[in-house]
Amino acid sequence: MDTPPEAPAAPPLVTAITLGVRDVGASRAFYVEGLGFEEAGHVPGEIAFVRSGHGQVLALWNVASMPSEYGDVGHGAQAPPVSLGHNAASADAVRAHYERALAAGARPVTPPETRSWGGTSACVADPDGFRWDFVHNPAFTVDETGRVRLEADG
Amino acid sequence: MDTPPEAPAAPPLVTAITLGVRDVGASRAFYVEGLGFEEAGHVPGEIAFVRSGHGQVLALWNVASMPSEYGDVGHGAQAPPVSLGHNAASADAVRAHYERALAAGARPVTPPETRSWGGTSACVADPDGFRWDFVHNPAFTVDETGRVRLEADG
Repeated sequence: MDTPPEAPAAPPLVTAITLGVRDVGASRAFYVEGLGFEEAGHVPGEIAFVRSGHGQVLALWNVASMPSEYGDVGHGAQAPPVSLGHNAASADAVRAHYERALAAGARPVTPPETRSWGGTSACVADPDGFRWDFVHNPAFTVDETGRVRLEADG
Repeated sequence: MDTPPEAPAAPPLVTAITLGVRDVGASRAFYVEGLGFEEAGHVPGEIAFVRSGHGQVLALWNVASMPSEYGDVGHGAQAPPVSLGHNAASADAVRAHYERALAAGARPVTPPETRSWGGTSACVADPDGFRWDFVHNPAFTVDETGRVRLEADG
């Protein structure tokens, strides 16, 4: 093999998260109108983008289009084994995010509760079943450069 | 219903992405040793954390433990309809990330190629089939506050 065209020194930090959705309009409404995300682009019926974090977007892509780039992917009998999480500043904020998500049409999965690892979390499902967890973890801190520190539980 | 305990003004920005993995050790090795991510915590056999972006971690959680918080989730016959994406600075950088991922044990899904939307992308599968796409999209820019701008294609 030849040497790669450019040796990537840095890891591929996540600048986009793409979810395969059955109804782009419904998913966009859930995220923008329901959860309050800022929209960054929309091609009706095909894809919508919202700003999900520093230097990052969440893409809501018509799942029917995904195989063209991602091969054999799709929704199965169970929800995808993945979750998007939001670390909130307090247990009260966890409850607030949970209530807002339900008001926006999310399905409850687990209500806010204290976990064995020492924090509080709650889980909901978006219109396609994708999990979101709202978490207050006292061990989760972010320094001024954006570097997360996390004391492992266990 | 009572009013929520705290009205969340801001959307729940993504501070964690959790993937359900079959073998935490193998997944940790792929991300840390293979792709070069910085580790942020590890409970062997249960969960590993790597730093995936500004104020964000990627959690590799034993998929067998997920139902306790996430309900009925799991791997099906097809790969999950989701992808983690990295916007790279050039088409050469896309190729470099792709080559490194293959060297780390990723399975190729689609090789680097020019897409109809005007950029270059490639897709690989991680040890559990989770898709990653490496993308050079000239329309993707991030301002000094971390806000992504993205001219929608179409």
